[in-house]
Amino acid sequence: MPASHDPAAPPSPDAPSAPARPSATRLDGLFRPRSVAVIGASRRVGSLGRELLRNLFLFGFEGKVFPVNPRADVILSSKSYRSVLEIPDDVDLAIVIVPREHTLRALEECGLKGVRGVVVISSGFREVGAEGLERERRAVEICRRYDMRMIGPNCMGIINTQEGVRLNATFSPTQPLPGTIGFLSQSGAMGVAILNHARSLGLGVSMFASMGNKADVSGNDLLEYWEHDPGTNLVLMYLESFGNPRKFTQIARRMTRTKPVIAVKSGRTAAGAAAAASHTGALAGSDVAVDALLEQCGVLRADSIEDLFDMALAFSSQRLPRGARIGVLTDAGGPAIMCTDALPSAGLEVAVLSEATKAALAEGLSPDASVKNNVDMLGHSDHTDYARCMRLMHQDDGVDAVTALYVPPVAHQAADVARAIADGRAESDKPVLCVLMAEDRVMDAVKREFGARLPIYEFPEAAAKAMGALVRYRNMQGRDPGTTPAFDVDRDAAAAIFRGVKAAGRRNLTLDEARRVFEAYGIRFARSRLCRTREELHDTAEQIGFPLVMKITSPDILHKTDVGGVVAGIRSVEEAEAAYDRMIERVGSITPRPRVDGVLLQEMRENAQEMIVGVTTDPSFGPLLMAGLGGIYVEVLKDVAFRIHPITDRDAHDMIASLRGAPLLDGVRGRPPVCKAAYVDALLRVSRLVGDHHCILELDVNPFMVGVEAEQCMAVDGRIRIDPDCVA
Amino acid sequence: MPASHDPAAPPSPDAPSAPARPSATRLDGLFRPRSVAVIGASRRVGSLGRELLRNLFLFGFEGKVFPVNPRADVILSSKSYRSVLEIPDDVDLAIVIVPREHTLRALEECGLKGVRGVVVISSGFREVGAEGLERERRAVEICRRYDMRMIGPNCMGIINTQEGVRLNATFSPTQPLPGTIGFLSQSGAMGVAILNHARSLGLGVSMFASMGNKADVSGNDLLEYWEHDPGTNLVLMYLESFGNPRKFTQIARRMTRTKPVIAVKSGRTAAGAAAAASHTGALAGSDVAVDALLEQCGVLRADSIEDLFDMALAFSSQRLPRGARIGVLTDAGGPAIMCTDALPSAGLEVAVLSEATKAALAEGLSPDASVKNNVDMLGHSDHTDYARCMRLMHQDDGVDAVTALYVPPVAHQAADVARAIADGRAESDKPVLCVLMAEDRVMDAVKREFGARLPIYEFPEAAAKAMGALVRYRNMQGRDPGTTPAFDVDRDAAAAIFRGVKAAGRRNLTLDEARRVFEAYGIRFARSRLCRTREELHDTAEQIGFPLVMKITSPDILHKTDVGGVVAGIRSVEEAEAAYDRMIERVGSITPRPRVDGVLLQEMRENAQEMIVGVTTDPSFGPLLMAGLGGIYVEVLKDVAFRIHPITDRDAHDMIASLRGAPLLDGVRGRPPVCKAAYVDALLRVSRLVGDHHCILELDVNPFMVGVEAEQCMAVDGRIRIDPDCVA
Repeated sequence: MPASHDPAAPPSPDAPSAPARPSATRLDGLFRPRSVAVIGASRRVGSLGRELLRNLFLFGFEGKVFPVNPRADVILSSKSYRSVLEIPDDVDLAIVIVPREHTLRALEECGLKGVRGVVVISSGFREVGAEGLERERRAVEICRRYDMRMIGPNCMGIINTQEGVRLNATFSPTQPLPGTIGFLSQSGAMGVAILNHARSLGLGVSMFASMGNKADVSGNDLLEYWEHDPGTNLVLMYLESFGNPRKFTQIARRMTRTKPVIAVKSGRTAAGAAAAASHTGALAGSDVAVDALLEQCGVLRADSIEDLFDMALAFSSQRLPRGARIGVLTDAGGPAIMCTDALPSAGLEVAVLSEATKAALAEGLSPDASVKNNVDMLGHSDHTDYARCMRLMHQDDGVDAVTALYVPPVAHQAADVARAIADGRAESDKPVLCVLMAEDRVMDAVKREFGARLPIYEFPEAAAKAMGALVRYRNMQGRDPGTTPAFDVDRDAAAAIFRGVKAAGRRNLTLDEARRVFEAYGIRFARSRLCRTREELHDTAEQIGFPLVMKITSPDILHKTDVGGVVAGIRSVEEAEAAYDRMIERVGSITPRPRVDGVLLQEMRENAQEMIVGVTTDPSFGPLLMAGLGGIYVEVLKDVAFRIHPITDRDAHDMIASLRGAPLLDGVRGRPPVCKAAYVDALLRVSRLVGDHHCILELDVNPFMVGVEAEQCMAVDGRIRIDPDCVA
Repeated sequence: MPASHDPAAPPSPDAPSAPARPSATRLDGLFRPRSVAVIGASRRVGSLGRELLRNLFLFGFEGKVFPVNPRADVILSSKSYRSVLEIPDDVDLAIVIVPREHTLRALEECGLKGVRGVVVISSGFREVGAEGLERERRAVEICRRYDMRMIGPNCMGIINTQEGVRLNATFSPTQPLPGTIGFLSQSGAMGVAILNHARSLGLGVSMFASMGNKADVSGNDLLEYWEHDPGTNLVLMYLESFGNPRKFTQIARRMTRTKPVIAVKSGRTAAGAAAAASHTGALAGSDVAVDALLEQCGVLRADSIEDLFDMALAFSSQRLPRGARIGVLTDAGGPAIMCTDALPSAGLEVAVLSEATKAALAEGLSPDASVKNNVDMLGHSDHTDYARCMRLMHQDDGVDAVTALYVPPVAHQAADVARAIADGRAESDKPVLCVLMAEDRVMDAVKREFGARLPIYEFPEAAAKAMGALVRYRNMQGRDPGTTPAFDVDRDAAAAIFRGVKAAGRRNLTLDEARRVFEAYGIRFARSRLCRTREELHDTAEQIGFPLVMKITSPDILHKTDVGGVVAGIRSVEEAEAAYDRMIERVGSITPRPRVDGVLLQEMRENAQEMIVGVTTDPSFGPLLMAGLGGIYVEVLKDVAFRIHPITDRDAHDMIASLRGAPLLDGVRGRPPVCKAAYVDALLRVSRLVGDHHCILELDVNPFMVGVEAEQCMAVDGRIRIDPDCVA
């Protein structure tokens, strides 16, 4: 059922009632409770019920904590209640850690008690099959009935470090550092690992949530909540799936204008099996849809958890650079070379220092030092050298950001140097990253002291990558989202064709049907006529004009070239007749014998650039638009770009610019540039087409010939495949 | 002077006398001394002279240590001598840490004393310009005179951890762990950082050397030394340049058959400025030469220091896998998905478990667990689960190696699980890597206990990359190096043409001259004739046959297409005459007006695959061969592969296979496959050509048309540029 891009489709379980709820404040019951009940609190050391309760106390929750356990009087020195209903005070938040078979009763009692939010740690729900799915359905039903919001089930809890709350309702073995990062994990295990690692890097979180099965509160709800939380200014996500990609797109697009969002996404979205037959479908495998979605939303995608943290370190304490020109300051050549080597692939440039800066740098340094960026002060540089050179580099208008490297000599002053680097920016707000290559205990000490204001990396490549992310985010923030032009299209004409195809019991449109659909949407098609008999060739060829191309027309043949069903460069009626005879003979030898409607004669464009416009349908993201070089190069070189429907003109231009073959459109080797605008127009019209007709599963315009003038641009061949069940 | 690939050129300073010396044992004086003098030993805390002396004592050098300092009687409780000449015993090794102006005298005294090896820590040599270069020249001269080997100058020392030696002659703040890794660093600062990091990962070294300026002992000398050292079975290198790439190639090719070599190379080899005019030259920028060199030698290239260590961890304790099919065992879904996600880009596959294995795995696991690789035992799996499942996965013939992930739950048994993972292989020799996502102190404890036999990673991607390196090395070890066929060529004919070009005061060959050179080397050229006048067109065109292509012939025009100097598809004498008139007119309008010899008429191949064969000359690596798709795609898509001359047939096939566009040669969409053998032949013949004629700086055969049959394959255009000074 690939109709998930139908706005009329029922909401996914990920966000069942979100549209109706002002979730931005509704989650306060979960994240800003004044009282917490731990249902399933335990005395047993090592049990989740004890460790979670202990974390509530240890981290210093500012409200009241009520252990609930029918078989204990006191747990961790606190009076324990037999049921949440016995608690004499109001309860805002309940944590449920009881065996699966008791969860529903616990939730029911929470509802009766008037609890506002529940975090269900217990497992045994959707993740264990049919029985669990039913349990989850009933849990959601109970929450709805009592107007409670639920995180989980099957999660590891939530954290809010903010003053006045100090809630650590997880069983994580380490306590989080307070900070400004909102952290969302779709995996409980990764959540624990991530909290551990964040702490060891000195990264502080404002709030954390392990989402579990996302039966009620979704990742989208949390993003909206954090969007409006003044204590959160950076969001990190570990994702395994997108529940409602359209809503995510809306929220993330808005949010990333003010707060950076960095995501690691594991796992692959396999494009639906239905898609495998087309070029576009085959190329859309792995996770291009996720890449496209995140790119369109301005979300930075990290390649790994390690990358996520490297980037988070930079974003958590540094401002965004105004440009991509990086100054590199060092006391050791090797690591600095590795750093500058890594700049280009991170989208950065080596800054060119002004003559004045170079002269000033040289004044205080050894004559052997290098003052041409990277600035190598040589070994035994001390903190005064770092302070002076940092200041000079910051003052240079040609420098947008600085990476400072320090490899401590024997008698080092790592702390003094780190301070000089951190303070060196003086009045400048240019970002500074630090690479410190020292033994563990020096690293640890310096990180502890300066980590909050100076990102410290162990390796130069990591710093370069993180700096690249700062620049990328800044560029994304500043970019014009573009517009979707209004087109005059004949929607009804296309709809009628789809109905006809459905009535004929088919899924694939003939070339002629496809042509009429494209023309209804203003996509010019090569002039062409169907000849049903050999006798028609003469007149039809004269009408079209030479040179022309002949193509077999059959509902049973998808890839015409493979069966010798395309002959190009026909220059006379005689050649046309000869080609016809050969083609009919060849196709006649195929088993099972395809139905043949005739041959299509088509005008031919020589010397234009072949491109492709494609669409495939992702089961959860809906239609994916593809742009690329056409012909056989799309298959072999796979030089294509994807975006999720709908796209803007800016998206279309970005798709083209991201192609390796993009320079071909600008004219190379004496060729004139071709009309990119016509190709952009075709992409936008196809986006409109699939937006209007949800029955379209797949579509290729291949090739779309892009000539020098707009009127020379046209589709030459095209395929459309529909889902008859979705024809309106 | 780009003649560095001339075998007759004087040896580079990197390996001045290496050929004459049996360096494999000569370096014993440096690495296996029975007595060490520290010239420049110091009492001052924090000085290099004190820290190095202290390391010698601390690490427990098994021979005698003699401090030398004219102004101290005793240093670190040891009697100090005024000069190395005053030491009553023999001295094998001297470490020189005196101010630069005293270095030469110290070396002279070492020579008089009969010292066998010196390590010069002092700086102030080649790295500081002319004065230093002269000092270095004299230092080398002294070493030669007294038959001493020297490491440095401007280095940070050497280490040999082997029993009976235990030499730590560095000022590194951490003591190295003994082990089997040979570690070579071209940067002193990186050397310190690397030693620190190795120690914190539990990686042990057999020997370490900081090479400094490599005035005498080169990296190549060390590689040869370690090749024959039974205590070293893995070599890691941090490189900034190659002194003698040809010798490196010989040694590394041989060495990597038995011992893996992993290198990080920083910095870029800019192809010589002379190369910038050609396609090949432009594409050979950055460091493709280094990539090609390492690939051809079987050396694994790490992208960063971090990668180097991730790979070293795997190699230092694990055997090589028999194949690329990886089993993944986990107690947490998220990290395992990230691990399997990372497998394909590391060249690995997800193993398919047998039904028997799956059934056996399922028996002891929760029904909610997944037994389809990756095997997810779910949270709260204990060491007995790990032990049992590891054994079952090892026993499955479809599994070549296992990555086990453990995310410890609250009450964890990290040590027990690590033991179960390490021991799980039982009698199997399949490699095992472990990903442990725990808080720092658990990580540290487990690494300490199990690190020597189980590589432990913090992130799944790092483990996947390291596993990929094991597989890659195994494949490289097993590959057939291929052969260089003997060709019947007319060397003298080519030499005569080069002499003629030189005599004419030119550097660029005309197309006709280039054609004759290629034909002398058996590379078939499209049939072509030069027409000097319009009158010759008629007869010449009839001789060549139609269709044909017309090309301007001028020593002043390199890129003919750019100036309208190529017209293809000429089908009659009339078309030829019209094309000629237009071409002469267009070329006549260029300023400065190029000299024109006439036009070349050439036979034309339609429907063959355009390829390119290129050569550029790297200043230190010599000729680089390039293969790729020809025409404008070589420029725009940059889909090319490089190898260093000379290449074997296997190299040529590997180059082709590595092209993204390689499937085009196998036939796509009904096209028949083209004759790859003819293209391989052309690559090998060009390799022979540049091997025979060192005057060739750059060469493009572009396009080389590859047809279905060998006889349809031919060069259509070609350029050769020579260095007249190197013409024999």
